[in-house]
Amino acid sequence: MIQYRENRLRGVDWNELEALSPAERAPYFMNGDSVYHVLFAQQFNREFLDRICELATRTRRIAKTRGGMMFLKELLSEKRAMLYFAQPSSRTFLSFLASCEILGLRSGEVRDSNTSSEMKGESPEDTVRTFSSYFDMIIMRHPQGGFAERIAWLLSNSERPIPVINAGSGADQHPTQALLDVYTLQRSFEGEGGIEGKRIAFVGDLARGRTVRSLATLMTHYPRVHLAFIAPPSLQIDEKILRTLDAAGITYELGEDLVGMLPDLDAVYMTRIQDEWDTQGESKAIDVGAYAITVDRLARMKDTAVIMHPLPRRGEISPEVDSDPRAKYWRQVRNGMWIRASLIMHILDRDGEVDRYYDDLVS
Amino acid sequence: MIQYRENRLRGVDWNELEALSPAERAPYFMNGDSVYHVLFAQQFNREFLDRICELATRTRRIAKTRGGMMFLKELLSEKRAMLYFAQPSSRTFLSFLASCEILGLRSGEVRDSNTSSEMKGESPEDTVRTFSSYFDMIIMRHPQGGFAERIAWLLSNSERPIPVINAGSGADQHPTQALLDVYTLQRSFEGEGGIEGKRIAFVGDLARGRTVRSLATLMTHYPRVHLAFIAPPSLQIDEKILRTLDAAGITYELGEDLVGMLPDLDAVYMTRIQDEWDTQGESKAIDVGAYAITVDRLARMKDTAVIMHPLPRRGEISPEVDSDPRAKYWRQVRNGMWIRASLIMHILDRDGEVDRYYDDLVS
Amino acid sequence: MIQYRENRLRGVDWNELEALSPAERAPYFMNGDSVYHVLFAQQFNREFLDRICELATRTRRIAKTRGGMMFLKELLSEKRAMLYFAQPSSRTFLSFLASCEILGLRSGEVRDSNTSSEMKGESPEDTVRTFSSYFDMIIMRHPQGGFAERIAWLLSNSERPIPVINAGSGADQHPTQALLDVYTLQRSFEGEGGIEGKRIAFVGDLARGRTVRSLATLMTHYPRVHLAFIAPPSLQIDEKILRTLDAAGITYELGEDLVGMLPDLDAVYMTRIQDEWDTQGESKAIDVGAYAITVDRLARMKDTAVIMHPLPRRGEISPEVDSDPRAKYWRQVRNGMWIRASLIMHILDRDGEVDRYYDDLVS
Repeated sequence: MIQYRENRLRGVDWNELEALSPAERAPYFMNGDSVYHVLFAQQFNREFLDRICELATRTRRIAKTRGGMMFLKELLSEKRAMLYFAQPSSRTFLSFLASCEILGLRSGEVRDSNTSSEMKGESPEDTVRTFSSYFDMIIMRHPQGGFAERIAWLLSNSERPIPVINAGSGADQHPTQALLDVYTLQRSFEGEGGIEGKRIAFVGDLARGRTVRSLATLMTHYPRVHLAFIAPPSLQIDEKILRTLDAAGITYELGEDLVGMLPDLDAVYMTRIQDEWDTQGESKAIDVGAYAITVDRLARMKDTAVIMHPLPRRGEISPEVDSDPRAKYWRQVRNGMWIRASLIMHILDRDGEVDRYYDDLVS
Repeated sequence: MIQYRENRLRGVDWNELEALSPAERAPYFMNGDSVYHVLFAQQFNREFLDRICELATRTRRIAKTRGGMMFLKELLSEKRAMLYFAQPSSRTFLSFLASCEILGLRSGEVRDSNTSSEMKGESPEDTVRTFSSYFDMIIMRHPQGGFAERIAWLLSNSERPIPVINAGSGADQHPTQALLDVYTLQRSFEGEGGIEGKRIAFVGDLARGRTVRSLATLMTHYPRVHLAFIAPPSLQIDEKILRTLDAAGITYELGEDLVGMLPDLDAVYMTRIQDEWDTQGESKAIDVGAYAITVDRLARMKDTAVIMHPLPRRGEISPEVDSDPRAKYWRQVRNGMWIRASLIMHILDRDGEVDRYYDDLVS
Repeated sequence: MIQYRENRLRGVDWNELEALSPAERAPYFMNGDSVYHVLFAQQFNREFLDRICELATRTRRIAKTRGGMMFLKELLSEKRAMLYFAQPSSRTFLSFLASCEILGLRSGEVRDSNTSSEMKGESPEDTVRTFSSYFDMIIMRHPQGGFAERIAWLLSNSERPIPVINAGSGADQHPTQALLDVYTLQRSFEGEGGIEGKRIAFVGDLARGRTVRSLATLMTHYPRVHLAFIAPPSLQIDEKILRTLDAAGITYELGEDLVGMLPDLDAVYMTRIQDEWDTQGESKAIDVGAYAITVDRLARMKDTAVIMHPLPRRGEISPEVDSDPRAKYWRQVRNGMWIRASLIMHILDRDGEVDRYYDDLVS
């Protein structure tokens, strides 16, 4: 087990914890100065974001040689991770799995949502505690919002606390997606002065889906960014997010005209109309073509612009756009693997070894 | 392949073998002096039980350091295990998987009960033989009692005999569960003079489920234990088990009054009322509260008492009991992983290397 | 990533590629002189077949010691393979998995044909590209003929080309089955002058199923073989295959009398009547007993004859035949694992290291 230097959840009452705001709860999931349980994007401050992005870049650099890959695969090779995906998602699952494999962690998985039936009436807490008993870390996706937090609290109050990573829960949180989005922006603007001061548009279905909400919130850590929310009025961004931006002094605008705005943008974050949440087919009335990137529209964009998408996509980005150097969404997929590997080594307290290897490499 | 020093199944007729009693069949599954195929609890004598428990304790001790974990994960790293779970069970599956991972064994799995449909009418023996062809050991759970034995016989009569571990078959045998239960008792009574002479109660549904039957039978190897079977009359223990205890000179009592008996007990082994086996809802009439451990009842128990449960639990043990030091059922889960790892290294003839590493460690 | 010395698919138009014959398409899937994407049996020439068989034999030899297994499991231990089985097949899946494990490759898997539903309307190409993003190689089975080729083309035109192995697609191609069949013949005739000049019969359902077609086609690389196709008239071999044999100067005969022909045969390749393809139960009229090997019929065969079967079998070969030394079908299963391991090391350009280890071993 890793050194859990300061277990702040020990002895805390669950109901009292649950009643706190995210900002108030965040310190409980730390281990000294480090993040221990990764549950929601509000846990991440600028220092943490910079550190994880730096680790990802160092790890990618190390991974370029066979020797470097051999070093990485020994890094956590005596550890085991449980991947509990009660809500199936092959793409997030495989990203975490590959991250573990890069670091040599071995894993066990339960990907089946029907497993509970087998559990013969036991509580969901007992099920997860059983699964986690054999492993050094639990990475979990669960349909119920807040469940990963409850497990983090439960395990931290057991004889065998292990860290919990939320790989997506309920409609609200998917913190590692937010991390990989930040990393993709940071990497893309490395030679352009960083994320600060950039004009970033979020396009499409901004009302539903957790990706945009989390990323927009994290943008408050980057001074002078300007955000544009481009969506049909019925799918515009949540007022609460705008209040958060106001409080942080982040400027923004709302609109419907993607094409008109394209020449001014440094990044467009495209999203899919999530019509699976429609109650009466309301998405059918939307002109989805107005919220799409095509080869024609590429011509209107800056040479240094960045196109992102959390995938899966439908018509929002034509496949012909893929070969344009500004298309970063396939790289974004790979970034997810690297950022998750970095997060895991950070939580399990092995990032210092990566720093030392990296320093030797570049010196 | 490991050295199969003496294949006693070679040339034996299946029908003749099947007609023997467990005690008569047991020698056929040995490899010289060692157990090779692990199929039923009657194969285990006291010497074997002590050896496997000792290995588990040594392995746990070795695993406390990173260096020790690295040693363990090389131990069988050139071997591969097939996990064939025709009857799904995530908890037993993950326990075996983690055991393999600790020892560096890589694995393949078929967890789907519907796989047979894919097998286009081939015999179940051909299916398992195909699966086993790529691996050095097969760990299997199957709904049909005796099927694991049949496969052990079949493979031992092929060009490529490999050991078979029964991970649960039919209604009868789950030998590694019995091992982990013995190990939990042994570990819990380490400072209390061992299992010998202890008063151990089995509580709840003693008629159905294989756990209690196997463990009670293994208690015959521990002189002077006294067993209590506490259950509603309709769910009392099988007469056959009592005859086995009589033959071994083990004393026992039957009763319904858990609360009254609590102050005298050294261990309580709780079980769930398995109402999935009800034919006409007969369990509904049972006062399940009478066969449960609550925080109130804890006060009546000895300070050194041990509470066990094979899990999953329902109401038999309140979650509030979990934090009491006498509650050993979560530790029991972990013990399962260590005892299975020990069993695998023993079967694959690498336990000597563990002994040597351990001797260096403590000398 | 491995060195993709010469990406001949870069910039090629898909429609133009698809319009070519297999022989014309084959060069596009090479990497310099080596096969890179493994998609159809027509890619294999004699030199390639000999090389892969030689590698398999060397690998089996190396694997006989613990040290050799340790060498092999480091060979590709920094690589990861994606096993995407949109059409489930536990036997082929486990064979590839074990191959990867022998070489130390770690893997991710999607075995579920229903995964696409989760993919919320994205294109199959996007799904596979996402899956492949985290891995160094993709091994895929897909119900749609030609899909693996399309993915090979797509990835070769992306920023991150990785090799694709077809593990079975549509009704037509299963190139690694053909390789393991050739290897089994080659191994079986090692002391008998090789495959050249042997009399080989294909028996059973020769009209449906891809195994016989592929293997018969590859026999054109072995001078002076004589082929017999023994089947009920309604299930006889495709005329196209016979034209291919004619063109290569391979002699053959068609017939129904297995028993009469047995004394002259060097190898019989048995197959199952695939009645799952029946449209109106036409297989029911066939006397399947006429196309079967029994213990009685064994007596009519040469002492050096070879009995093969791609499995699963039904009544075509009695289980009693299994213990006869001429029965090679269980060995054939194992050969599949070794030949796939050899193919993977060849594609990923590590076979030179195996040659060097082997040379040290035998010198």
